[in-house]
Amino acid sequence: MADSPVRPSMSHSYHCRIYVTLRPSVLDPAGTAVQSGLQQLGYDSVSQVRIGKYIELTLEAPDEATASQQLDTMCDQLLANTVIENYCFEITALEGAVTP
Amino acid sequence: MADSPVRPSMSHSYHCRIYVTLRPSVLDPAGTAVQSGLQQLGYDSVSQVRIGKYIELTLEAPDEATASQQLDTMCDQLLANTVIENYCFEITALEGAVTP
Repeated sequence: MADSPVRPSMSHSYHCRIYVTLRPSVLDPAGTAVQSGLQQLGYDSVSQVRIGKYIELTLEAPDEATASQQLDTMCDQLLANTVIENYCFEITALEGAVTP
Repeated sequence: MADSPVRPSMSHSYHCRIYVTLRPSVLDPAGTAVQSGLQQLGYDSVSQVRIGKYIELTLEAPDEATASQQLDTMCDQLLANTVIENYCFEITALEGAVTP
């Protein structure tokens, strides 16, 4: 087989959606600016605007538990700054995407 | 009553989550950089990294249909650049948040 040595011998593809948000105690100047912009456009009933990041990626892993564990480490190491940000994610198996 | 004249006489609070993503045909250099970073950390099985925005806000509206319509206009006018970005949103009614 021509698989890379680091790839598991039987892996599934997962579509992952990661949401990175500022912790509630951290000020969000961008959110405040957007809220002000919306209110200037006439949307007076908008409040508590917070802006975060939304990251989509495809991950190959032997099973969903492993994918979840890897994503968690990725978020801790690179995708989120856990001092000021929280993160959560959703994992969806891509149908018919088994790599033998 | 001391309500603002622009506020509907009976309004509900809705928690709105808006996802703004680059259109698939638009290059995403930030996503490519993050993918490269993840691969340098040893996550070789990551691909198709795309970075978007995740916006949370609270909206007061008489009903969910009106909230949805207002959000749609907000996204078109300010929150997303529809030339290069797509958006979608979810609306959740905040329980017990009826403003008479």
